[in-house]
Amino acid sequence: MSDATQDTGPDLDALRAAHPEHWRRAACIRTLTLDAVAAANSGHSGMPMGMADVATVLWSKHMRFDASRPNWPDRDRFVLSQGHGSMLLYSILHLTGFPEMTLQQLKDFRQLGSITAGHPEYGHAPGIEITTGPLGQGLASAVGMAIAEEIQRARFGRKIVDHHTWVIAGDGCLMEGVSHEAIALAGKLELSKLIVLFDDNGITIDGKVSLADITDQQQRFLAAGWDVLEVDGHDPDAIDAAMTEAKKGSKPTMIACKTHIALGSSAQDTAKGHGALTDPDLVAATKRAYGWEHGPFDIPADLKAEWEEIGRRGADARAEWEARLDALGSGKRAEFDRQLAGEAPKRLSATIKALKRQTSEGQPKTATRKSSEMVLEVVNPIMAETIGGSADLTGSNNTLTEGMGIFSPETRDGRYIHYGIREHGMAAALNGMALHGGARAYGGTFFCFTDYARPAMRLSALMGLPVTYVMTHDSIGLGEDGPTHQPVEHLAMCRATPNTNVFRPCDTVETAEAWELALTSERTPSILSLTRQGLPTLRKEHTNKNLVAQGAYILAEATGKRMVILMATGSEVAIAMEAREKLEADGIGTRVVSMPCWELFEAQEERYRKKVLPAGPVRVAVEAGARLGWDRWLVGERGKRDKGAFVGMNDFGASAPYPELYKHFGITADAVAKAAREML
Amino acid sequence: MSDATQDTGPDLDALRAAHPEHWRRAACIRTLTLDAVAAANSGHSGMPMGMADVATVLWSKHMRFDASRPNWPDRDRFVLSQGHGSMLLYSILHLTGFPEMTLQQLKDFRQLGSITAGHPEYGHAPGIEITTGPLGQGLASAVGMAIAEEIQRARFGRKIVDHHTWVIAGDGCLMEGVSHEAIALAGKLELSKLIVLFDDNGITIDGKVSLADITDQQQRFLAAGWDVLEVDGHDPDAIDAAMTEAKKGSKPTMIACKTHIALGSSAQDTAKGHGALTDPDLVAATKRAYGWEHGPFDIPADLKAEWEEIGRRGADARAEWEARLDALGSGKRAEFDRQLAGEAPKRLSATIKALKRQTSEGQPKTATRKSSEMVLEVVNPIMAETIGGSADLTGSNNTLTEGMGIFSPETRDGRYIHYGIREHGMAAALNGMALHGGARAYGGTFFCFTDYARPAMRLSALMGLPVTYVMTHDSIGLGEDGPTHQPVEHLAMCRATPNTNVFRPCDTVETAEAWELALTSERTPSILSLTRQGLPTLRKEHTNKNLVAQGAYILAEATGKRMVILMATGSEVAIAMEAREKLEADGIGTRVVSMPCWELFEAQEERYRKKVLPAGPVRVAVEAGARLGWDRWLVGERGKRDKGAFVGMNDFGASAPYPELYKHFGITADAVAKAAREML
Repeated sequence: MSDATQDTGPDLDALRAAHPEHWRRAACIRTLTLDAVAAANSGHSGMPMGMADVATVLWSKHMRFDASRPNWPDRDRFVLSQGHGSMLLYSILHLTGFPEMTLQQLKDFRQLGSITAGHPEYGHAPGIEITTGPLGQGLASAVGMAIAEEIQRARFGRKIVDHHTWVIAGDGCLMEGVSHEAIALAGKLELSKLIVLFDDNGITIDGKVSLADITDQQQRFLAAGWDVLEVDGHDPDAIDAAMTEAKKGSKPTMIACKTHIALGSSAQDTAKGHGALTDPDLVAATKRAYGWEHGPFDIPADLKAEWEEIGRRGADARAEWEARLDALGSGKRAEFDRQLAGEAPKRLSATIKALKRQTSEGQPKTATRKSSEMVLEVVNPIMAETIGGSADLTGSNNTLTEGMGIFSPETRDGRYIHYGIREHGMAAALNGMALHGGARAYGGTFFCFTDYARPAMRLSALMGLPVTYVMTHDSIGLGEDGPTHQPVEHLAMCRATPNTNVFRPCDTVETAEAWELALTSERTPSILSLTRQGLPTLRKEHTNKNLVAQGAYILAEATGKRMVILMATGSEVAIAMEAREKLEADGIGTRVVSMPCWELFEAQEERYRKKVLPAGPVRVAVEAGARLGWDRWLVGERGKRDKGAFVGMNDFGASAPYPELYKHFGITADAVAKAAREML
Repeated sequence: MSDATQDTGPDLDALRAAHPEHWRRAACIRTLTLDAVAAANSGHSGMPMGMADVATVLWSKHMRFDASRPNWPDRDRFVLSQGHGSMLLYSILHLTGFPEMTLQQLKDFRQLGSITAGHPEYGHAPGIEITTGPLGQGLASAVGMAIAEEIQRARFGRKIVDHHTWVIAGDGCLMEGVSHEAIALAGKLELSKLIVLFDDNGITIDGKVSLADITDQQQRFLAAGWDVLEVDGHDPDAIDAAMTEAKKGSKPTMIACKTHIALGSSAQDTAKGHGALTDPDLVAATKRAYGWEHGPFDIPADLKAEWEEIGRRGADARAEWEARLDALGSGKRAEFDRQLAGEAPKRLSATIKALKRQTSEGQPKTATRKSSEMVLEVVNPIMAETIGGSADLTGSNNTLTEGMGIFSPETRDGRYIHYGIREHGMAAALNGMALHGGARAYGGTFFCFTDYARPAMRLSALMGLPVTYVMTHDSIGLGEDGPTHQPVEHLAMCRATPNTNVFRPCDTVETAEAWELALTSERTPSILSLTRQGLPTLRKEHTNKNLVAQGAYILAEATGKRMVILMATGSEVAIAMEAREKLEADGIGTRVVSMPCWELFEAQEERYRKKVLPAGPVRVAVEAGARLGWDRWLVGERGKRDKGAFVGMNDFGASAPYPELYKHFGITADAVAKAAREML
């Protein structure tokens, strides 16, 4: 660890004299950062100022990219895991000539409607490969990118897929727990094309890193199976040599770059330097120290031309790659394009329908985690792009199907990943695979451990990545493992998250429909909430139509006058059906509405929603989870007046065989029927 | 890492011959485990079978405890981080004679109403120091226990506080990211009385550890600043020597115990051995291999007597300790007792009232994160038991007040902890401090990073620990940092969690009231959702009464006929007040209800709730978060019919100065007034 505040820092004049051309290029990044942060009066100056040398060498000499074709599939991926240093990325994208990243955008840093958000936001502009900011996420998703690259290479050959994933990560990223999961997974998988540039500046927001950490990061990476190098992060020759060395290795490589945060400013090597340096005198003095004589946002034309030349460095390689792709042969080429576009194969629909028909006819009693496996058994053989895995619960999540093969250093064509007990790292890796392209990734764990994966699951939603979370053991129905393993609030948590489809299917047919929607989703992650316990088949009449796509639908209609509507999801739909029988036996007309996906139901036209949930009948919702959110459906559309009751959990669960728990917590057909009767 | 399946495992006969007395004792744990798992037909047999030798040595020779006084404050703490191996703990508690842990309880393992849940549940019985099961949590909370022990010792002296924290952790615990945060924090803080016994058996659920991990755990702990030892986990002499050595060190110690999971059974060293071994033939054969000739749950009287003797080992030390405590002097003794009981000092109430009065008079515009600091500035000096900290956002969370001192290896009397960028580790440590006793712990981060801390925050609630989460920057009101840092779904997530008080105060007065409730809570964690941006004082008339304690209350009454009720929390209460003025100006009588804590409002009598939210007026809720949950309040009590509208977020946020964001997302007084008018 550097103890940078003890010395006065490097001699900038000497650095400039030693590498004048490099220095001027790097100064562009530093001064654009100072200018943009000053204009916004907000942001983080120190990191781009400290890492400008490393970034300049990377983009000038190593990054495989073509600014005019930012989405070239075989480009190197660049991940700024220290997302707060966003001006480093924006500066480079502007300088090298990425479309959309105009100078005006830099001037509009952190303003409404600009593409230059406080932290890089995926989708805002080409060249922003990933949303970062929550620390550690970039690093962990980069592992997924590197996995996808390996698998894609195994599939299409080195001539088509052969690129690196570069990560800049800081102390914060490396303190976050997810960094441990990520580097251990990368080490085990020998992801040699993953290179992490550690911004080893010894400073965090509270002060020196040593206030909170004495970890020997290099030793730590070695322990995880990585190669490790160390360089002076302001010496371009040393940086260049280390990057060259790193690319040769057979393991992932961490390069510890000893840098000075907020280099050259009076805030250098201090916590103040981490934040927004906006004082005009400080900015002016720092620019003088850089030998920079130009005004705010003023990049001399010759210097801009040099950077744009760098932006064209990869053009030939890109053109050669395109020629190789054209020579691939039409079948393989079409498959490459399809996988990259994320388009499901045409056969998927028929395959799902066949499974639905077979289930409706056979009517087996099945746990939906097993139903999910039945879907994967027919889907994985026809979708080569699926990459499955589990956080060490393969036999419980039912996520591995025959013939997938295990992805390992020896078997790069395997499509199943043993993530280890790393729910968070798994979720972040799924994001990375989706961002990389050519992969439709899913991963399994217990639904309760959504807790561990939350930060990355939120980013799936924010980035609009169609990954699938296979979350089994989704209620007290898991039984004896008890309250630590029994989700209660998790459905509410997932449903409250924007752009997230939460599926809680009631049987194999609904599970197949949910999977079909997940596998064809373009911009929304899917969470499958699946049972451990067996459930009866409730969709006994085959429909070609995907009913889950409507979010909620009438599963059983009332006989005679409709007096009650029972609403339920997943394992509780069977309870609602049983309650319906009791009520109907007493002449109380009862409709059962299955609501496997609230978000899709909310997205329907009001007319459909009113058809499914008309005003008039009393309503009872039953779900083995928290009530929060159900009141939305217990009353009618805004202003309509209906009576409603909820049967579910209002506390944590308990450890016991599951039928006893359902009784103990009062989630029974009798309780549902009673609640309905009380309102009539 | 052991590669245990390659050999046939240890020679049990030789082990037995070498240490017959030890062997028989350890066999009690092993056979009780086999019997209980068989009776439950569920559970995890392999871990207790593998770690029985280590546990036997620990409890026979090192653990400082007195089974007859299980809550002796100066006892060693034992944390079974591998919670699935719960039968190891239950067996020992039974054998050593802990009250309540009867043989019948072991026979009722994993049954409804028993204290022997699938995973250890804090509060079920003395001797269960912590709820574990979600992997890594026990280890991370043990760090908090060890911190609390150090601080308490600095406060009351070595004669009163001088005990160890022992942790058994497995591969799963060490793969989870939180383990990295925990061990790095412990290493930095030189928690020399923390000793981790790593169950190094090389097996996880999916198979060999090496399927997913090649981490050199010993090197990893060394990198984090720990001492590391390695022993044969079936050699009692070696285990004893290592424990003796570990207690002498000046750093935390990890002892890698090479063990065989499911020792002696046909499932030894396999993933199958991790789970429930219930086959009668396997059980019988394993008992034969142990040389065990007794029936199920049959512990010979002489052996039980030996174990009970162990249970009395600490009785003298405990009595001596009590004598020292009595000699402490009445003032210090009273303070020790008060802190341990978690009783707030009598002065707290008057202190909070004084701050409230001062605020109501001065009516400053203040961000509630700053309000929180104002509270801590008056509270910390009168509550020596508070232990504060932040996950590297001290200056943003406003969690450090003058005179607390920083807790470090050099300054053990410091009460503020620089947790580093480790939200998860911090939350788990808070739990550990609360469990240890003598500490009222709070920790700060951005509200959005609740995501990172979720698994531990859930355990705060499940265990009923009155810790306080200081969550600042609680909405789009944080501005330029953008959507990765802007909570949307987080209020819903926290509110859905049982036994959690979520406070979103609207000004300094409410913040003071919320803190008072948090600091006097006995069994419920508190989450303070606080703003970055300045807010006006809305409680302009002083009341001695704590209005937040009612959860929601009438902040401003309608003039004339009450036609509208506006409901809001936190920063949006000021918006509601502004909307009220607009509506009243048009003769529309409008009540404003501040709802700082839904949970406490829900706990009020129905009469009070109806008084605050009577039927009749239209209702508009405004909150800069997701709608999920608000429908509960938008309609009246069950069956009552009111019109309601919600003004808030329905997507992720954006990066811009916050006043622009409020306009952009339509969370304005105009929008609130418009929503009300539309319903009239």
